[in-house]
Amino acid sequence: MDTPKGFTAAGIASGIKKNGKMDLGLVMCDKPATAAGVFTKNRVKAACVLLDQKRLAASGTCQAIIVNSGNANCCTGEAGMADAVEMGKAVSAVLEIDEAQVLVASTGVIGQRLPVEKVRKAAPELAGKRAENGFSDFSEAIMTTDTMPKIVTRKGDIDGVAYTVTGIAKGAGMIRPDMATMLCFVCTDIGMSPEDLQAVVAAANEKSFNRITIDGDTSTNDTLLVLASGMSGAHVKTAAHREAFGKVMEEVLVILAKMIIKDGEGATKLVEISVVNAPSDGDAKKIADTVANSNLVKTAFFGEDANWGRIVAAMGRAGVDFAYDRVDIFFNEVRLVENGLYVGPDAEKAASEVLKRPEFTVSLDMKAGPGRAVAWTCDFSLDYVRINADYRS
Amino acid sequence: MDTPKGFTAAGIASGIKKNGKMDLGLVMCDKPATAAGVFTKNRVKAACVLLDQKRLAASGTCQAIIVNSGNANCCTGEAGMADAVEMGKAVSAVLEIDEAQVLVASTGVIGQRLPVEKVRKAAPELAGKRAENGFSDFSEAIMTTDTMPKIVTRKGDIDGVAYTVTGIAKGAGMIRPDMATMLCFVCTDIGMSPEDLQAVVAAANEKSFNRITIDGDTSTNDTLLVLASGMSGAHVKTAAHREAFGKVMEEVLVILAKMIIKDGEGATKLVEISVVNAPSDGDAKKIADTVANSNLVKTAFFGEDANWGRIVAAMGRAGVDFAYDRVDIFFNEVRLVENGLYVGPDAEKAASEVLKRPEFTVSLDMKAGPGRAVAWTCDFSLDYVRINADYRS
Repeated sequence: MDTPKGFTAAGIASGIKKNGKMDLGLVMCDKPATAAGVFTKNRVKAACVLLDQKRLAASGTCQAIIVNSGNANCCTGEAGMADAVEMGKAVSAVLEIDEAQVLVASTGVIGQRLPVEKVRKAAPELAGKRAENGFSDFSEAIMTTDTMPKIVTRKGDIDGVAYTVTGIAKGAGMIRPDMATMLCFVCTDIGMSPEDLQAVVAAANEKSFNRITIDGDTSTNDTLLVLASGMSGAHVKTAAHREAFGKVMEEVLVILAKMIIKDGEGATKLVEISVVNAPSDGDAKKIADTVANSNLVKTAFFGEDANWGRIVAAMGRAGVDFAYDRVDIFFNEVRLVENGLYVGPDAEKAASEVLKRPEFTVSLDMKAGPGRAVAWTCDFSLDYVRINADYRS
Repeated sequence: MDTPKGFTAAGIASGIKKNGKMDLGLVMCDKPATAAGVFTKNRVKAACVLLDQKRLAASGTCQAIIVNSGNANCCTGEAGMADAVEMGKAVSAVLEIDEAQVLVASTGVIGQRLPVEKVRKAAPELAGKRAENGFSDFSEAIMTTDTMPKIVTRKGDIDGVAYTVTGIAKGAGMIRPDMATMLCFVCTDIGMSPEDLQAVVAAANEKSFNRITIDGDTSTNDTLLVLASGMSGAHVKTAAHREAFGKVMEEVLVILAKMIIKDGEGATKLVEISVVNAPSDGDAKKIADTVANSNLVKTAFFGEDANWGRIVAAMGRAGVDFAYDRVDIFFNEVRLVENGLYVGPDAEKAASEVLKRPEFTVSLDMKAGPGRAVAWTCDFSLDYVRINADYRS
């Protein structure tokens, strides 16, 4: 795998997870990289989120990110903030870099003290294992209820000079739109200003992580961090460059966002909810999100039941004024509802076939205006309940 | 069971439900009763809801209500509206009353034509079975995924003249706060003006059905209808009378609302979410509702896991600005979180015992102001998913 120039990464088991799996990850850049971040909008924020927001605002650069899984270091008060600082300090000491250049992320159970002593002890081993091909280990080390690592690399070029973007994400529960995201880290060797990078990242995030839901819950630790080393020699200088890079960034984030949904707790299906011809984009988004978050719609997906009545009931409570008797509903290419009315048993049979697939699209044509929006969701299965009734035990 | 004077009720099987269970219910008053109603806020409304709203607005009185289960008669277009009218007409003909005095309600699957021919054929038998003690049959006839009928009777008096209130409700899925309710019918022999009755019903509904959630979904058919015959001789004349009657009405509706939650699809626990000392009542309501609707909180209840971190995460996404480091969280009398921090394993052990009970209260003390609110919810179980993955098949 090609990785962006200037970056090394590693993942190891430090003992935070009781099952002995990898739980500590590190990404480092040879020099302070331009950095941008998007964080949870939850009013209750983990210590690492508060620390990163402060550090990012102060410098706009970052040289290393340390991440632990198995413990969210959230709702841990002043002691928890001291632990987050300590975690960064352990890394800056062994890497011999400025402490302010280290960002910190945590994911796992809320409300328990982070065993920071384990991080301190493991830091030398973690730093020693860094390698250009260490991103795979890193992507495993940040997993919690995830069943597979989520990593993607894309290439682009500016005036013929190639650059690389590698993104890594985790997340399988406590996920819904209108937030930052779960944990996601993106490294690229493109060069650009912190302001431009933040703008590109915020826009791409809006079209990717902010369009997904697994269970309607928003984490206290959601963090998306992007580091740009500039070491490819490809530099963003014009609006056209920025736009082209924005498309690459959006592609990377959408792929990761869909990976998160596919790996949603208990999920067996990835479903795209596509609203078209809504009164406005905002209305389309409200409807797409409400349908994507409906437990009844999601359990019907699990049952492979083309239960369009539940989709209609969810549309109706989305807070949008619309004429129901113009609505068409499609499962992939199969129109099951036309102008608000059931098409018939043949269409239902065809729609039921679509529902058996691991991925499909539900399109809602409102014939009311130019608005459109997409949301990605998963089905709601017995295993979702099993996983979440057992999570802490 | 004492029933309110002037009312008779019945329930029979008409063949709408394929399993042969009762599916048609009728309540009749000897004369047109003062009537009030609250209906779903879903943008997509069933034919019966639209018909009832029109008839109630025109007269403020009602002499009979016919209800079918097994078919929602929703998203059925003009044909569905004709079916609803026809259903009322079948009843007015056999009862020999004014067609405009009949209200209609339907509950069941969305999007299929109501077999109104079955209703017409069954109407004479239904009318013939009416009896003062027919409310039990009526309460069974309106059930869908409910596992038990929901009926309650309370008595009050005005200046020594006794009156009776009997309420019947159904509902086990597609239920969340901030709507009218599922189907609920209340008969009383108190006398009062339609305006006073509507005010009392709206206020009591706000404190009962609008405070419950099972799955966060809002039905297209939710209807609460209240008929007052005035035949007890007890008449509401003063504000004090109205207030006293309002308390009786609220008690009846709260009991029925809690019955609905206890019988929530797959539910094993009834949980009260009580928010106190919030910045305002509105803020308290937002937080209570968000916690009550969180799938992660509800699956933790099912797992009997005192997972307060999920409660905190839900509070944080409720759209309320608050100081987390002042929050206390109680499971019944057990304080598990104090000023935002975990109290310790002894408290957790005690809280886990509370979670094993079929009913308990989670109290969130925000120490921020005079605001308070309550929401009632259930746990989220494997059976919820089983029921809803199978519902139509």
